[in-house]
Amino acid sequence: MEIKNKYVTIKTNINAAPKESDFEIKVQNVSLIIESKDVVVKNMFVSIDPYQINRMKSQSSSQGTISFATAISPGDSIDSYGVGRVLFSHRPDFKKGDLVAGLLTWGEYSIVKEGSLLNKLDPNMGFPLSYHVGVFGFSGLTAYGGFFEVCKPKPGEKVFVSAASGSIGHLVGQYAKLLGCYVVGSAGSQEKVNFLKERLGFDDAFNYKQETDLKSALKRCFPQGIDVYFDNVGGRMLEAAVANMNSFGRVAVCGVISEYTNATTRAAPEMLDIIYKRITIKGFLAADLMNVYADFLSKTVEYLKSEKLKTIEDVSRGVESIPSAFIGLFNGENIGKKIVKVADE
Amino acid sequence: MEIKNKYVTIKTNINAAPKESDFEIKVQNVSLIIESKDVVVKNMFVSIDPYQINRMKSQSSSQGTISFATAISPGDSIDSYGVGRVLFSHRPDFKKGDLVAGLLTWGEYSIVKEGSLLNKLDPNMGFPLSYHVGVFGFSGLTAYGGFFEVCKPKPGEKVFVSAASGSIGHLVGQYAKLLGCYVVGSAGSQEKVNFLKERLGFDDAFNYKQETDLKSALKRCFPQGIDVYFDNVGGRMLEAAVANMNSFGRVAVCGVISEYTNATTRAAPEMLDIIYKRITIKGFLAADLMNVYADFLSKTVEYLKSEKLKTIEDVSRGVESIPSAFIGLFNGENIGKKIVKVADE
Repeated sequence: MEIKNKYVTIKTNINAAPKESDFEIKVQNVSLIIESKDVVVKNMFVSIDPYQINRMKSQSSSQGTISFATAISPGDSIDSYGVGRVLFSHRPDFKKGDLVAGLLTWGEYSIVKEGSLLNKLDPNMGFPLSYHVGVFGFSGLTAYGGFFEVCKPKPGEKVFVSAASGSIGHLVGQYAKLLGCYVVGSAGSQEKVNFLKERLGFDDAFNYKQETDLKSALKRCFPQGIDVYFDNVGGRMLEAAVANMNSFGRVAVCGVISEYTNATTRAAPEMLDIIYKRITIKGFLAADLMNVYADFLSKTVEYLKSEKLKTIEDVSRGVESIPSAFIGLFNGENIGKKIVKVADE
Repeated sequence: MEIKNKYVTIKTNINAAPKESDFEIKVQNVSLIIESKDVVVKNMFVSIDPYQINRMKSQSSSQGTISFATAISPGDSIDSYGVGRVLFSHRPDFKKGDLVAGLLTWGEYSIVKEGSLLNKLDPNMGFPLSYHVGVFGFSGLTAYGGFFEVCKPKPGEKVFVSAASGSIGHLVGQYAKLLGCYVVGSAGSQEKVNFLKERLGFDDAFNYKQETDLKSALKRCFPQGIDVYFDNVGGRMLEAAVANMNSFGRVAVCGVISEYTNATTRAAPEMLDIIYKRITIKGFLAADLMNVYADFLSKTVEYLKSEKLKTIEDVSRGVESIPSAFIGLFNGENIGKKIVKVADE
């Protein structure tokens, strides 16, 4: 018994901005005579995240030698967080028809090995299934845990979020507002700026592409300085944020999208600021924040139900749309969480 | 009643490596008809520290706008930690002849205002007076507090110290050895390298001036990676240390001497390392570490008495030697704590 699985792979390692010709759609036959501990999942929604580019780099590139999450080689299927329905399972804990979230692949089907992340979803939770890819998935956990655990914010503090209309940024800004912080976001278009201020309640926002001097832009938005910077971009913005930071300021480095596709764009913050203002810069991964998952989930469910929190999704359709959805992340095309709907519910 | 006070000042703001012609020795008349809360101190030993250069920069320079410790203007006397003897005091807590340590000046006499740092010394402590400028002063506290409080080291961890033969570095390395860490230092001459390994018990050391690739040098010295980096230099060394760091590595930024006199030499560490290895980079000042002072002092006294800790001093003599002593810090001339002995005891 076999099924045909259409999936996305890279044709070659990618060391610059990704483009359509770097990807191809392949079809493979998947045997359903599977090992007893495997679970076959029919994918419904898959997550499209900028960090994946770092796994696609060639090992010989300057950033390729950094040992992070498993590298992706040309031809490999590309794993990614997602939501689907169990198609086949020998395991007692998963049966055909179960809704699941976990480490799936950019394709129509996923074979989830034992030990790999897979959780059953409660079909009666009362939220769209796609929420389990975004706000209840790693984007939400990263935003919540990164903000509360890494930044250690206090009500009234001044919070800056870059890539603020992105999958994580738009949640961080809202969590910060809910805590009682003054919140400013940066984004790459006037539409996004308006969105942050009018729809999400940011105190202020600016279009970084329209600013000739990021330090001055931040000085204008933060006359009292920045206490917390949730960094999604790195590069010149990180330098400008450090220059505007208050004493004992904290930078949580969640991502550095401006550096992912250009290894020569590296932030060189003024170290005298870091010393004299006792600034902390801390990199983190959501995987280290599982200790706050229960708290994150209960708070987030409550905020969503009471409409204190909005989650924004940007959904494309079909496996074929995955490469352009991914490429779009680096061109600032998405507002909110980028998701591809692979199959209907 | 007046005394003549010979003191050092700057002729102009200094925005590059300091040179003799930037300084001058002046003489002023000091009235001993002082305000009731002032204390006149005859200086004996004064501390010579690299960070003072940051206070001498012009406010219009790129680093001059950073708001740190009071700027020094041409003609001003230059305050500095030191040890002396009370010459005149109306205050009941200080009387003529008392030995004191506190914020004195680069000169023969200091007028210490109420509220400024001044502490009486116990003349029976059994250590040379100069120790109160170095190992019992801010150098020691910075080394101890910066290492234990900021780096949070554990026995067995791999510790890298730059400027390791300097006032703070040579103590950090020894505290790390006493904790049971593997310790490597960098310094700027073979003599210093030998000194670290043979006299201070460092596990390894290297001369950064002889290395063509700092990343490779650190890889050679740390085959198991770096857990803690106590940074005194910034620049390329910080980049190389981050590249060699283990997961959850910590960088305590104490000073960045390579960046003090050249604002264009700014560390641009690979941010992907900082994220994926969850590295923390933290600037700190000794003034924030007063909570560990009692612990620091009792441990350090015990280590010195039992000869588990060596403190190294590099002492010049006379007010006239202060400029060259200071300039020498930036040329790597000193081994250990640089002190100028202004007057005999």
